[in-house]
Amino acid sequence: MKKIKLLLLALTIAAPLFAQTAQAQFAKPEDAIKYRKASLTLISSHFGRMQPTVKGAIPYDAAAIKANVDVLKTLSVLPWAAFTTGSQAGTDAKPEIWSDAAGFKQAQQKFEAAVVKLSDVSGSGDLEKLRSAVGDVGASCKACHDSYRAKK
Amino acid sequence: MKKIKLLLLALTIAAPLFAQTAQAQFAKPEDAIKYRKASLTLISSHFGRMQPTVKGAIPYDAAAIKANVDVLKTLSVLPWAAFTTGSQAGTDAKPEIWSDAAGFKQAQQKFEAAVVKLSDVSGSGDLEKLRSAVGDVGASCKACHDSYRAKK
Repeated sequence: MKKIKLLLLALTIAAPLFAQTAQAQFAKPEDAIKYRKASLTLISSHFGRMQPTVKGAIPYDAAAIKANVDVLKTLSVLPWAAFTTGSQAGTDAKPEIWSDAAGFKQAQQKFEAAVVKLSDVSGSGDLEKLRSAVGDVGASCKACHDSYRAKK
Repeated sequence: MKKIKLLLLALTIAAPLFAQTAQAQFAKPEDAIKYRKASLTLISSHFGRMQPTVKGAIPYDAAAIKANVDVLKTLSVLPWAAFTTGSQAGTDAKPEIWSDAAGFKQAQQKFEAAVVKLSDVSGSGDLEKLRSAVGDVGASCKACHDSYRAKK
């Protein structure tokens, strides 16, 4: 009985602490919106800057591409926690992000998996493999935008 | 003589390609500004979310803090290439960023080194060490802002 009381006491103390951790990241919906836009801006930039290589306009510098993909990999997991409840208003985010949370989660995971695959081949120097992996990442971006981002 | 001609030919071809690489990252000053603001937004968010731990408001979860600092380390090197020539207008960036490029470079390096030091201690579980390293990172942010960011 004493153990249960201690456990309840611990939970009473811990619960607000956990809530505080989640809250601390994004105190207001605007913070979450700013954060996810920022992370998607960086993802778009680091993805886009590989296009000249993929198109064959510049030589394939495997070390530079790998370094860029390493950054992209870190960035690829960042935006999703920032689609917090109540942060839709005034953005291009479709309500389906929240009403179809499982589908949105799946779309993220497809993107993240495509980036991991890109990471695996990015340092190989094999332009065909790079082109194919970049194409898959691009397709996963588009699929998610088509379903979960309002048309401009 | 033939070698020199070939070298000159190679340089003539290569120079626009290198220029294209640099240009490809930020085609317009607005792109550079958007990119650096985005990266500084993420840095600020990932730095700030450690405050509850540092202040002792929540327990020191060493694995979570280390994962966060890993992200911060990747982000810490991103903004600087985006302070491109001609990208000052309409921003808080002071002209000293360009007129005192060496000083600005030193300020970046101080920040990056402080983040590396933070990374070294972040998984230790030693709150005092974490607090001190976070303090040094914060001081390097402030020093750079004081010198190179216009007061609002």
